[in-house]
Amino acid sequence: VTRFRATLVYDGTRFHGFQWQANASPTVQEVVEAALKDVCGRDLRVLTAGRTDTGVHASGQVIAFDLDWQHPAEDLRNALNASLPDDVAVRAVDVAPDEFHPRHDARSRTYQYTVYVGAVRDPLRRFTAWHLIAPLDAKAIQQAAAALVGIQDFATFGTPTVGDITVRNVTEARWEASSDGSEHCFTITANAFLFRMVRSIVGTLVMVGQGRMTVDGFRAILATRDRQQSGPVAPPQGLTLIAVNYDD
Amino acid sequence: VTRFRATLVYDGTRFHGFQWQANASPTVQEVVEAALKDVCGRDLRVLTAGRTDTGVHASGQVIAFDLDWQHPAEDLRNALNASLPDDVAVRAVDVAPDEFHPRHDARSRTYQYTVYVGAVRDPLRRFTAWHLIAPLDAKAIQQAAAALVGIQDFATFGTPTVGDITVRNVTEARWEASSDGSEHCFTITANAFLFRMVRSIVGTLVMVGQGRMTVDGFRAILATRDRQQSGPVAPPQGLTLIAVNYDD
Repeated sequence: VTRFRATLVYDGTRFHGFQWQANASPTVQEVVEAALKDVCGRDLRVLTAGRTDTGVHASGQVIAFDLDWQHPAEDLRNALNASLPDDVAVRAVDVAPDEFHPRHDARSRTYQYTVYVGAVRDPLRRFTAWHLIAPLDAKAIQQAAAALVGIQDFATFGTPTVGDITVRNVTEARWEASSDGSEHCFTITANAFLFRMVRSIVGTLVMVGQGRMTVDGFRAILATRDRQQSGPVAPPQGLTLIAVNYDD
Repeated sequence: VTRFRATLVYDGTRFHGFQWQANASPTVQEVVEAALKDVCGRDLRVLTAGRTDTGVHASGQVIAFDLDWQHPAEDLRNALNASLPDDVAVRAVDVAPDEFHPRHDARSRTYQYTVYVGAVRDPLRRFTAWHLIAPLDAKAIQQAAAALVGIQDFATFGTPTVGDITVRNVTEARWEASSDGSEHCFTITANAFLFRMVRSIVGTLVMVGQGRMTVDGFRAILATRDRQQSGPVAPPQGLTLIAVNYDD
């Protein structure tokens, strides 16, 4: 038996998030485990780097599983892709150390959030971006976002999924806009994230970009560690887990 | 009664093309005319700049219609967008000259076709790009594409929808690739296009990019004016009508 690591890409639109749930189906985990069963003929459980919420996408989710597989890893990748539905694919499969755990061993995760600004909604981006009508001041947003970097208590922007520690280490928080201001992309990397943290941050940064909160105001609510001070949670379709980073 | 011109954006995935058909529903025209009926209370027919096929998208389709509307054109745009389904939107509405016809008055049309190259299909682009596994030689493709520019007989690459003239004036044919070769975008502008012309050209250019046809071979089959010489028709989801161009 070998431990494999696989990188997943998925369109989260029709899924109730990544993880198995008692009362909601389908989840990404369900269809991935069904594909593994197709390929190897028995029930397998996968380990994952982290949950993603309903409607959230991934281009770099990481899972692990144990399998007795005598062929090249590339053949396993192709067999899984042949069995998976169109909205999920395995980008890569490789052999991992026996003790590899995609969540425990992850050094950090990187998410991207996409916003587009225009008078009219865009049918071609309705599943992959948040549409806003009013222009955004990208410079003010970037000033506010810079305050996120560092080891800090992020209780304002989310709740822990395990335990009660709300301190996280954000190593990158970058808001970029196209020259005409119609496309905005927020990239954030942290050792780990609280529940709804990225979308709460984006919803609050957008308030800054719309002049409904000052940069100092943003810094102040971060310092309160009070979940009630956060802006609204941005909608899921703009969010993509683009990478889980490991020390190898 | 005023003649209005409207620019449409749509995700063609679930539509049987733009135009009303006896045996296939829904079409984009159907839902646009239904929205007009919602807004003005009666049946209207729209004129269009051109058909798009099943699964083909548009970010700049143009239609026209006559309406007795006393409010600003922007209010009409917003009313239509409120009534249209999520996969169709009106980007702009303005008042046109009484005799404006979106097809007859069009100077040219511009289409874009998107290809991505990678070992694995990409769930996030399955409705908007053609996935190919083998690398493409973008330079060879661009050399072949350059032969398309000019007033020529394009019978190799399509059939006329009206009459039997297959001469068209291609004013732009540009194949661009990302530096890593994973993304390719083909932009083509002509006074008008034959049925399946862009997709036949793309299917044939890809043969050049894969080394299955030489640049000279491409020029030679263009010169034959023989529809049987074309490569395969590229799939619809990579194609988007991005603009219809007028002299104003």
